[in-house]
Amino acid sequence: MATRHSSRLELDDYLPYLVNRVGTVIAERFGSEVLAAHGLSIAMWRVLAALAANGSLRQIDLAGFTSIDTSTLSRLVSRLVRAGLVRRDRSAHSDREVAVKLSVKGGALVARLIPPARQYEAAAIAGLSREELLVLKRCLRRAYANMENRHAAAAGAADQRSRKAG
Amino acid sequence: MATRHSSRLELDDYLPYLVNRVGTVIAERFGSEVLAAHGLSIAMWRVLAALAANGSLRQIDLAGFTSIDTSTLSRLVSRLVRAGLVRRDRSAHSDREVAVKLSVKGGALVARLIPPARQYEAAAIAGLSREELLVLKRCLRRAYANMENRHAAAAGAADQRSRKAG
Repeated sequence: MATRHSSRLELDDYLPYLVNRVGTVIAERFGSEVLAAHGLSIAMWRVLAALAANGSLRQIDLAGFTSIDTSTLSRLVSRLVRAGLVRRDRSAHSDREVAVKLSVKGGALVARLIPPARQYEAAAIAGLSREELLVLKRCLRRAYANMENRHAAAAGAADQRSRKAG
Repeated sequence: MATRHSSRLELDDYLPYLVNRVGTVIAERFGSEVLAAHGLSIAMWRVLAALAANGSLRQIDLAGFTSIDTSTLSRLVSRLVRAGLVRRDRSAHSDREVAVKLSVKGGALVARLIPPARQYEAAAIAGLSREELLVLKRCLRRAYANMENRHAAAAGAADQRSRKAG
């Protein structure tokens, strides 16, 4: 029986490695083979796709959907505004908030990019059974929620400690 | 029954999105909560972990293991050399090749970082059954292989075309 050597990290069995490798290879190929011809980086595509899926978003929420940090995101949005693909408007909820949404041109571009995006997903999951694919996606959602909840719990505990100390 | 709207991209059911989100959240948390205190970025950690798992590597192979492009990798290795964590040596295979490996100090640092790295993996997979975890990892390996094989097949076809044309 194989024993687990805790002093070694077998990368081929280490989830963060397996996840990063798949994410990077799909992003690189889609980026160089499809997005580059449209003048888009993978980060810009993520912003456009998140806006297409969610409609108008505050930048803070857009950062959450795209996993892009807020200062990088702000620069990306400015580039997309200059390219005429997104608009910055007053939020519907508050005059003091700015919301970002796709322009008509941006919406049309996303519509053109969705079929190739689906083709790259299909290429990645070729040969997986329907059942395996369901498990894969469910586990990825769960892993993300686990990390988010852990973070929220830690922030809550720190908050409680500071209130007790205060 | 839900129909699939091909003109929309439901991000919560789109594998590249689910993968990127998990990879990013684990990397960010491990990076800020663990690696930063050691002066390491997540990319530097990936280089160190790949060298710990594989021993001495040519930079081209190290790029493959870490999914980091070769020019970025070259700068990263130089930084790690200056930090005393890795060494560049002549390759065992050829005087003209350079191989990269961990220094004693680099090996000791990786050994210290493996337990927290495993803790972050454990946090991410909390609540998954052993069976689900096996399916998850197997599917991620398969998806990576699918993308690599597709690329190799496309390169082979281009090569054949250019030979026919030549």
